Amino acid sequence: MENHTFTVIEGGSIVTPQGFSAGGLHCGLKKNGRNDLGVIVCEVPAAAAAVYTTNLIQAAPLAVTRESLANGQLRAVVVNSGNANACTGEQGERDAYRMREALAQELGLAPDEVAVASTGVIGELLNMEAVLGGIKLLPAQVQREAGSAEQFTQAILTTDLVKKEICVSVEVDGIPVTIAGAAKGSGMIHPNMATMLAFMTTDADIDQPALQQLLRQATDTTFNMITVDGDTSTNDMLVAMASGFAGNRKLNPGHPDWNAFAEGFIYVCRGLAQAIARDGEGATKLVEVTVNGAVSEQSARAIAKTVIGSSLVKSAMFGADANWGRIIAAVGRAGEPVNPNTVDIRLGEIVVLQGSRPVAFDEDNALEYLKGDTVTVTVDLHHGKGSATAWGCDLTYDYVRINAAYRT
Amino acid sequence: MENHTFTVIEGGSIVTPQGFSAGGLHCGLKKNGRNDLGVIVCEVPAAAAAVYTTNLIQAAPLAVTRESLANGQLRAVVVNSGNANACTGEQGERDAYRMREALAQELGLAPDEVAVASTGVIGELLNMEAVLGGIKLLPAQVQREAGSAEQFTQAILTTDLVKKEICVSVEVDGIPVTIAGAAKGSGMIHPNMATMLAFMTTDADIDQPALQQLLRQATDTTFNMITVDGDTSTNDMLVAMASGFAGNRKLNPGHPDWNAFAEGFIYVCRGLAQAIARDGEGATKLVEVTVNGAVSEQSARAIAKTVIGSSLVKSAMFGADANWGRIIAAVGRAGEPVNPNTVDIRLGEIVVLQGSRPVAFDEDNALEYLKGDTVTVTVDLHHGKGSATAWGCDLTYDYVRINAAYRT
Repeated sequence: MENHTFTVIEGGSIVTPQGFSAGGLHCGLKKNGRNDLGVIVCEVPAAAAAVYTTNLIQAAPLAVTRESLANGQLRAVVVNSGNANACTGEQGERDAYRMREALAQELGLAPDEVAVASTGVIGELLNMEAVLGGIKLLPAQVQREAGSAEQFTQAILTTDLVKKEICVSVEVDGIPVTIAGAAKGSGMIHPNMATMLAFMTTDADIDQPALQQLLRQATDTTFNMITVDGDTSTNDMLVAMASGFAGNRKLNPGHPDWNAFAEGFIYVCRGLAQAIARDGEGATKLVEVTVNGAVSEQSARAIAKTVIGSSLVKSAMFGADANWGRIIAAVGRAGEPVNPNTVDIRLGEIVVLQGSRPVAFDEDNALEYLKGDTVTVTVDLHHGKGSATAWGCDLTYDYVRINAAYRT
Repeated sequence: MENHTFTVIEGGSIVTPQGFSAGGLHCGLKKNGRNDLGVIVCEVPAAAAAVYTTNLIQAAPLAVTRESLANGQLRAVVVNSGNANACTGEQGERDAYRMREALAQELGLAPDEVAVASTGVIGELLNMEAVLGGIKLLPAQVQREAGSAEQFTQAILTTDLVKKEICVSVEVDGIPVTIAGAAKGSGMIHPNMATMLAFMTTDADIDQPALQQLLRQATDTTFNMITVDGDTSTNDMLVAMASGFAGNRKLNPGHPDWNAFAEGFIYVCRGLAQAIARDGEGATKLVEVTVNGAVSEQSARAIAKTVIGSSLVKSAMFGADANWGRIIAAVGRAGEPVNPNTVDIRLGEIVVLQGSRPVAFDEDNALEYLKGDTVTVTVDLHHGKGSATAWGCDLTYDYVRINAAYRT
């Protein structure tokens, strides 16, 4: 990853790509007065693609967004936090449609040019008075300014502590193309589809099927490889919109700069995914687990996810305890082929297990390393050529505190 | 379950069945001075059966016990706590064999009449001086007395707070037959085979293949249906021994009292499994999840396990929060067929969801109920005839505290 074909734009946001503006405000869904309603708008119909939760119980906005995206185009996405509009029956569906229609009306769009996303508590009806009142005020907030993007990223957060956004620039046909993303995560995060809300914008001109394919491909190795708590939300959604304003020749996998674009796109997805894991509910650190030498990439993914999902491994990370026994125990229960006698484990650069046998290591060094804000765990199975990396966080008192009294 | 064909023997233990004695002592593996070495002895070669962890990484004692059990008979089981003898390589295997031989020698048995089990920290070599010293002193402790059984049940505990034992009496051929069990659990507990150490004794005369079959069958609906933290240990083992001293005609599935015996046997397994879940690391309550109306029993089991394993559901239970949204979200991600529109959920007798729609309920009532030490969650999918029950516990600050600094 040292030689990128793209440049990270410091301070870039979802409105850095040409053609996009955004905004956000407090409409009254969150009790703490923070922003709870946001919108991203594209000046023209953007080529758009999305992936959704694999949970069979899906929130009302997902059905509405699927309908809007049927033609592969979007002009806007409206998002609320504080209420997931999930398990709210026909009234919930009607409310999601009303959100879409109200925003379309305010912006002079057709309803099916608008996607809808919600995040928050499950099973309560939306306060539509607040939502519709907010939507009326929203267009005045929509600007192509960093401050407006900031209002949007604040509006999508729930228990998140920090906003998550990344922006990169890639050369396509010698022209700079920008790709940006914003996400929210925190709880109910588990690798099974886009496990949160995330929004990506790009000014690249790109074939819609190519965008959809790239989104799926990027999701497999990024958003689908993070876990906070093993729970998959009813509301997860990742939407990408491309304005085409950069003026490049239309991108598709046959374009000579496709790989460069894809690399930048995946970088944005991976960065957002890592940011979600690092800001997992109660987390004090990002934990990255790489599995090498599995029988296949799929097998490596399953093992990496099992290790990163282990409550015991996560508790040990919180305690800065070099408890590799829990790591190998998780490897062994992943349901994937493992040779019990050839497993190596490293914490950072510290080898703790070689050929499944303990290696003497300096406990003080290990403690110092594990106290850091980023910990890498490398497992080499010496059993094949499959590799994969997963990201998660530690399990802390604060995770319990946050989730023991979320609804009340 | 109101009309049992068996009687619970209050104060009964693993030495209540005729032919068995037990003992335990502190040999020096645990730093806190508590018992860490125990033994169960049968006066005659007992028909014996076992099930083991499904983890691919298996501790040394499991190989030794498998070897001893090849002929379906045992005279004794020796167990240590404080050290799992897992990931200890060839030295670990040699140590497990030495434990077996030392106990056999002290008791005048053949080595393959002895099973070995270990529980505790992974990856450290056993202090064999302590173990062998303890084994020398052990025979003097072995009695057929409640106090000796108590010494044994104390010797197998790690982070457990309470001992787990159950004893029942069943009539077979008009003769009272007793079945007893003792177990340890607490952490690294997840439904995938016997997820702990458990030892059962009975004075029934029973065909060994019938005992093995019954053990597997009982495990599927009891020990395999509990979870504390989703982690499967490298050391899990459930061993059952039958002395035949009750004097009944040999039991097998064709015996007229087979069902009565099996019911008592499964009751002991279920009771131990529930006790392990209730005493999960840091737990303040037992949570029982029953799924009805699934497409099959297997599907119901998978869904019940997903709900009971959800960190979000478990945190809500700790907070006495009637957060049914997390329950239905877990149902939806179990990977099993679910009709998203026909799900009912009850907390105890309180209906909170009907036809996937929220039902208004008295929050104070729900809070009062969820504050209890046993909470039942009933999910009815109205999608088939499969039912299953799983047991677990809440996720608490103490779970994190215990596991953030277990090894150090």
